[in-house]
Amino acid sequence: MAFSNAKLLSSEPLVEEEARWIKLVKLAYKDAHGTARTWESAERRTRPRSGSIDGVGIFAVLAKPSGPELVLQKQYRAPIDAVCIELPAGLVDEGETAEQAALRELREETGYVGAVSETSPVMFNDPGFCNTNLRMVHVTIDLDLPENKRPKPQLEEDEFIEVLSVPLAGLWDECKSFESQGYAIDARVGSLAEGILVAQQFKL
Amino acid sequence: MAFSNAKLLSSEPLVEEEARWIKLVKLAYKDAHGTARTWESAERRTRPRSGSIDGVGIFAVLAKPSGPELVLQKQYRAPIDAVCIELPAGLVDEGETAEQAALRELREETGYVGAVSETSPVMFNDPGFCNTNLRMVHVTIDLDLPENKRPKPQLEEDEFIEVLSVPLAGLWDECKSFESQGYAIDARVGSLAEGILVAQQFKL
Repeated sequence: MAFSNAKLLSSEPLVEEEARWIKLVKLAYKDAHGTARTWESAERRTRPRSGSIDGVGIFAVLAKPSGPELVLQKQYRAPIDAVCIELPAGLVDEGETAEQAALRELREETGYVGAVSETSPVMFNDPGFCNTNLRMVHVTIDLDLPENKRPKPQLEEDEFIEVLSVPLAGLWDECKSFESQGYAIDARVGSLAEGILVAQQFKL
Repeated sequence: MAFSNAKLLSSEPLVEEEARWIKLVKLAYKDAHGTARTWESAERRTRPRSGSIDGVGIFAVLAKPSGPELVLQKQYRAPIDAVCIELPAGLVDEGETAEQAALRELREETGYVGAVSETSPVMFNDPGFCNTNLRMVHVTIDLDLPENKRPKPQLEEDEFIEVLSVPLAGLWDECKSFESQGYAIDARVGSLAEGILVAQQFKL
């Protein structure tokens, strides 16, 4: 995919009246001593009214004879003007569970059909800065299933995603290598890699 | 610490002219096909002019005879109106390296004096939503050092942080337990826990 075409052209202040997807809020709160304080925060406007989470991340593992591989994707992200190495992910639609959203997004973005094995607690992406959050859904992909032989993503017209997979055991080194090639690393991918690294280092 | 006092009182739209810490931007970009598109993004106003990262996270390990323990902290976060389980972290000051910021913040927030063992690639917290990022700095804390016998945090007047540590090997179960007690889980902590869990599950 010719990601090299993608690039930032300009950045300008976004005024409240024009913003459709995100917003800034001014929060008034009492701190642990009961003192009144304020805080500035960013929020999505798209969180389902019925739900408490914005999205899901999908930790999808290909069970290969050579060892488990993690499904990753490359996607240009305008906020950071870079192609980012990420887990498959997406926003939760009104009325969907985290698991339903995860299997739907996995199929749309990668073409793979998976089975859910575990769901994480709600995780907050940057809780000093914004309220965005997700659940990570763990999915196993059986490569012997006919529908997983030649997975066909069903992307929207404005989505450009390249799917790849890397050995789970070497994720930290893969992240360092991706960065040296000019890719950005999503924090979920990087922190997963760190967890695997320290489990190996400390023989956990 | 009486975190139970802390709570959100109100939330209202924040207008551009009043915002001091964060901002919204409207981005114009070309996608992978060369088509002109726009995107909405949130940013911090505090990123050092000389640097490319907002902050650092600190993966600090206490080398205990019973096994390695991870330093965590509890902090009320107004954006999510909850007490969040996080790694020590902080913004980078003008002219500081990631490692200098990490050792300074660790000392201020926890009182511990550490030694850096590893620095992560730059990680992006939520690259479809904002440009905030960090490097994770891995720090080892030698509990035999006199200054680590009775660590004394040096918090600012408006900082309320409780420091704790949990066994690294059981971090996933600890996260589930914290959530069941009403705490929120920061994504770096949760993803680290996932990495350790899958390393154990897949014997990586």
